Amino acid sequence: MSTKIDIILKKKLRNPVLIAGLPGIGLVGKIAVDYLVSELKPKPILFAKVYSDSFPPAVHAKNSILEIIHDELYIYSSKTRDYLFLVGPVQPALGNVPNSQDHYEFSESISSFAKKIGVKEIYTFAGLNIGDQRMKAKPKVACVTSDEKTKANFEKKKITNVYFDKDNKDTLISGIAGLLPGVAYQNNKISGICLMGETDSKLTYGDPASAKEILEITLKLFPDLKLDLKSILESAKKIEESFSKMAKDIEKMNQPPKDETPTRNNYIR
Amino acid sequence: MSTKIDIILKKKLRNPVLIAGLPGIGLVGKIAVDYLVSELKPKPILFAKVYSDSFPPAVHAKNSILEIIHDELYIYSSKTRDYLFLVGPVQPALGNVPNSQDHYEFSESISSFAKKIGVKEIYTFAGLNIGDQRMKAKPKVACVTSDEKTKANFEKKKITNVYFDKDNKDTLISGIAGLLPGVAYQNNKISGICLMGETDSKLTYGDPASAKEILEITLKLFPDLKLDLKSILESAKKIEESFSKMAKDIEKMNQPPKDETPTRNNYIR
Amino acid sequence: MSTKIDIILKKKLRNPVLIAGLPGIGLVGKIAVDYLVSELKPKPILFAKVYSDSFPPAVHAKNSILEIIHDELYIYSSKTRDYLFLVGPVQPALGNVPNSQDHYEFSESISSFAKKIGVKEIYTFAGLNIGDQRMKAKPKVACVTSDEKTKANFEKKKITNVYFDKDNKDTLISGIAGLLPGVAYQNNKISGICLMGETDSKLTYGDPASAKEILEITLKLFPDLKLDLKSILESAKKIEESFSKMAKDIEKMNQPPKDETPTRNNYIR
Amino acid sequence: MSTKIDIILKKKLRNPVLIAGLPGIGLVGKIAVDYLVSELKPKPILFAKVYSDSFPPAVHAKNSILEIIHDELYIYSSKTRDYLFLVGPVQPALGNVPNSQDHYEFSESISSFAKKIGVKEIYTFAGLNIGDQRMKAKPKVACVTSDEKTKANFEKKKITNVYFDKDNKDTLISGIAGLLPGVAYQNNKISGICLMGETDSKLTYGDPASAKEILEITLKLFPDLKLDLKSILESAKKIEESFSKMAKDIEKMNQPPKDETPTRNNYIR
Repeated sequence: MSTKIDIILKKKLRNPVLIAGLPGIGLVGKIAVDYLVSELKPKPILFAKVYSDSFPPAVHAKNSILEIIHDELYIYSSKTRDYLFLVGPVQPALGNVPNSQDHYEFSESISSFAKKIGVKEIYTFAGLNIGDQRMKAKPKVACVTSDEKTKANFEKKKITNVYFDKDNKDTLISGIAGLLPGVAYQNNKISGICLMGETDSKLTYGDPASAKEILEITLKLFPDLKLDLKSILESAKKIEESFSKMAKDIEKMNQPPKDETPTRNNYIR
Repeated sequence: MSTKIDIILKKKLRNPVLIAGLPGIGLVGKIAVDYLVSELKPKPILFAKVYSDSFPPAVHAKNSILEIIHDELYIYSSKTRDYLFLVGPVQPALGNVPNSQDHYEFSESISSFAKKIGVKEIYTFAGLNIGDQRMKAKPKVACVTSDEKTKANFEKKKITNVYFDKDNKDTLISGIAGLLPGVAYQNNKISGICLMGETDSKLTYGDPASAKEILEITLKLFPDLKLDLKSILESAKKIEESFSKMAKDIEKMNQPPKDETPTRNNYIR
Repeated sequence: MSTKIDIILKKKLRNPVLIAGLPGIGLVGKIAVDYLVSELKPKPILFAKVYSDSFPPAVHAKNSILEIIHDELYIYSSKTRDYLFLVGPVQPALGNVPNSQDHYEFSESISSFAKKIGVKEIYTFAGLNIGDQRMKAKPKVACVTSDEKTKANFEKKKITNVYFDKDNKDTLISGIAGLLPGVAYQNNKISGICLMGETDSKLTYGDPASAKEILEITLKLFPDLKLDLKSILESAKKIEESFSKMAKDIEKMNQPPKDETPTRNNYIR
Repeated sequence: MSTKIDIILKKKLRNPVLIAGLPGIGLVGKIAVDYLVSELKPKPILFAKVYSDSFPPAVHAKNSILEIIHDELYIYSSKTRDYLFLVGPVQPALGNVPNSQDHYEFSESISSFAKKIGVKEIYTFAGLNIGDQRMKAKPKVACVTSDEKTKANFEKKKITNVYFDKDNKDTLISGIAGLLPGVAYQNNKISGICLMGETDSKLTYGDPASAKEILEITLKLFPDLKLDLKSILESAKKIEESFSKMAKDIEKMNQPPKDETPTRNNYIR
C-alpha cells in the first residue's frame, strides 16, 4: 500500500499553501496546526485522508466506530487563496531502528501530491529541543528554508521572534518537519519553510506556549487568516506558570536535573 | 511469499461469516475461537491453511512431524449458513519495531480472500486490557464496528453484557483484531465487528473467563451454533477463584501493584 | 541480491543428499558438518558459495585477503552417490526483531537450488536446548521429519540414541534447521530430516559432545562415509569432564542455577 | 529511491581512483579523507552527491538552509590522474538490527557507479579497534586487499608502518570499509584495498593520530598528492598527550579498565 491519499473533496485549488504539523518534539507542530483546524472560522473542511502501511498497525475507535489510523488534510479558503493543513496522530515512527525508507516514501508521496494539486510553498511546524533553557525565557522560533531565495523572501518580512542560525554549525532536523520540505524542494522544486518553536523534549504532553509563538508568526505571514488565540493563550499560561514554579523549586535544590543537549551534532555517527 | 492461503477443502459457501481469534492480550480471542473449533458438533473441518513469511521463521513439530508455522481456517456448516473460524498460533509480531507493513499486508490478504469467497461480515474476538480492574468484576465485552449501520444492527439485538463506548474518546486497537475489520471495510466493504473481552494484560497464560463472556454473546448472535460451555466454565471458574484469592491477598498488603493503564491514548506519539 | 548461489564446480551429481549444519544452539549442527568437511578422506571439494544480503554487512579477511561473508556447499563423492555439505559462519539473524522474510527467502533459495540439482533428501543438524539437564547424561538426539513416510523409513533403521517425540506436544524449531526441511517439503516435495543433539544453550562456544552423537548416527545412516571420530571424541571428552566437574561444584552449592527451559511452547505469542 | 548518485560536475576522468572515508570506529577513515578534501591544493571540487533512503530520515541545516542528508564525491586532478574522495556524515546504520540489505545495496550502487566512470582501484580508510592497546604505542595501519595480486603489488611498495595479518585468523570488517571493496571486486572486478588505522573504539570523538598514519601512507602510495600534515599533526599530538596522561593516571590505579576486545571472531553467531 505504502502511502495513499484519498481525496474526499473534489475542488480546484487557488494558489494553495500546505502547512504541516504532525507529532514531534513537544508536540509543538501538531498543537499549532490542530489549533488552526479547530479555531479558524468557518471551520476548515476535510479535503483528503492520508493512509500509510508505515503507520502503526492499529485502528482508532471513536464512539465505537473504528477507523484505520490516518492523517488528514483540511482545507480553508480565504478570499484570495486555499490553505491545506496536514494534521493527524502519526508520522512514520522515529526510533533507533532503521526504517528510513518509510520516512522518505511518506515525504515523497506528500510532496508529489502537493505538486499535483498546485502547491508552490510548504510550511512545516515543529519543536526545537533546547532542553532546560526552555524554562528560562519565552520560546523563540527558529526558521530554516529550502533555499536562499525563500530565505531572503522570508527575511524581508521582518517578523519578530523568528531567527535564522547564522553560524556555520550543522543543525539536524529529524522526521517529516525537515524531510518534507527537503524532499519537496529537491524532487518538485516546491519552496519550503520549517518553523521550529523552542521547547523541551521532556514536555511529552505538549508545549502550547511554544505552539502559540508559531501561530503568532503564522498570522503575520498570512494576514487573511483570522484566529482567536485566547484558548491557546490560556493553555500556554498554565504551562508557563508550572514552569516558573518548577524553576523556583529547582533553584532550591542542589542538584539540578542534567541538561538534555539539543539535537545538534556535527557527525550523525 | 507474503501471505498465502492454501485451500484444503473445495466447497461452495452459503452466506459465510468469518470469525477470527488470534493470539493477543489475555489470549481472549484465541481461546474463544479455539473453543468453537474444538467443541462444536460436528467438529469443524479444516478449510484452508494461512502461511506468511511475516510469521516466525520456525516450524512446529507434533509427533515428530514438522510443519511450517501457519494459521488455519475451519469451516462449520449449520443448516442455513457456513461459519469460517480463523485460528492459529500467530499473527504478525507486535513490538516496538516498525513492521507495520506485515500487519497491513496480512489483513489485506485475509480481507480480499474473504471477499472472494463471499464473506459479508467479519467478527474479530480479542482482549481489552483494563488492568487490575479485571479482578473486581465479571468481565464485560466492548464492541466496536466498522460503520454506523453495522453498529445500529448490532444494537437492535439488545444483547446483554456488551457495551459501546459512547464518549468521544479515542480507543486504540492494535493488531489484527482491529486492523482486519478496518481494512475489510475500507477495501472490500465487508462489515466488521470487533468484540473485546475485558481482561488484564498480565494474564499471559490466558483469560478463559473473559473468553467465555464472548462465547455467550456469540451464541446469542448466532442461534444455530450449539455449544456446550461446561468445559470453559470450569477453566473460567478456576481463574476467577485464583483472582478472588489474589484480590484478598492484595487487600491485606499496604502497597497494591500499580495499575497498568489500559491501551487508550489520544496521541499515538 | 537476496540469496545467490555461485556454482564453483560444474558436475553432474549422482543421487545427491544435502546435509546442512549452520550456527545455532550450542553450535551443534555447525560442529558436526564442519567436522565432516574437514575429516572425510579425500577432502570434500568446494562446490558452491552461498551469498545473501541478509547476512551481516561485513567481510572476512584471512591472510589479509577479504571476502564477502558467505556459506559454502562442499561435495563428497562416495562410490555410489554425492554428498553436499552446507556449512558456513552464518544464517539469517535470529533475534527479537521481525525479519522472518530473510529466513523464508533463504530457505526457499536453498530448497529450490537443491531441487534443481536433484536432491531428494535434506538433513539438517542442530542443537536442542535441554538446559541444565544436558549435564546429567550423555546427550541423545531428537529427530523430526517432514512427513510420516520419511519418519517410518527412518524408524525402520533401528538406530540407537535417536528418539522421536511421541506425545502430542508442540515443539518449536527456530531457524534454518527447521525451516529448510519445512519449506523443502512443502515447496519442492523433498523429504527432510532434522537431527537435534541435546545441548545447553549456555554452551555458546559449542558442544562437540553433542555433535559427536549426531556424527555417530550419520555414520550409521550413510555406511559409505568413513570418518575418524578421534579428534571430536577428544574435544567431547574435555567438555564432558568440565561438565562433571561443574556438576560436582554445583552439588556443593545450596542454590543451583535456574533451569533454563527448553524451547517448547504451545503458544508462540 | 535506494541509493542515488547525482553528478554535479560533468567531466571525463583520467584513470580515476576512489578513496572512501565514511564514519566508523574512531572516525579514522572519515577524518583522513575529510582532511584530503579540505587541505589539498587546489581544493577538490564537488563531483557528485550520494543520496540514499537508508540514510537517517533527517535534514541538515547550515546557515538556515536545509539539505537532505547525503554523502559527497569530490574530485582532485593531479597531472596524471583523477582522485575521487567519498566523504560525508553517514553510511547505512550499523546496529543490532538486521538491515543488511541497505549496506549491500549501498555498496553495490557505489561500486557499479565507480565501474561506470572507469575506476579500477578502490581504497577504503577505516579504524581498527585494538582497545586499550591503542594507548601504548603509535598506531600501526592494517591492510587487507580484495585479492592476492593487489596484495602482492602493495607489498612491493615496501611502505613502513603497514602490516598484513599473516596468520590464518579470521578478521571481521563491518560496514562499508570492508563491504565496498568486497562487493566491488566480486561484482565489478575492481581491485580494493582497505587501510585500517589502529584505534580505540571508545574514542567516539575521533582519533586524528590514527588518521594521520593513514595519510602518511597515502602520500607514499600517491606521490603526486601534496599535503601539508601540520594541522592534523597538531590534533594528533593533543590526542597522544591526553593519552599519555591518561596512561599514567591509570597506572596509578589498581583496577585498570577492562580491555575491550578487538572485533575479531571466528564465528559470527
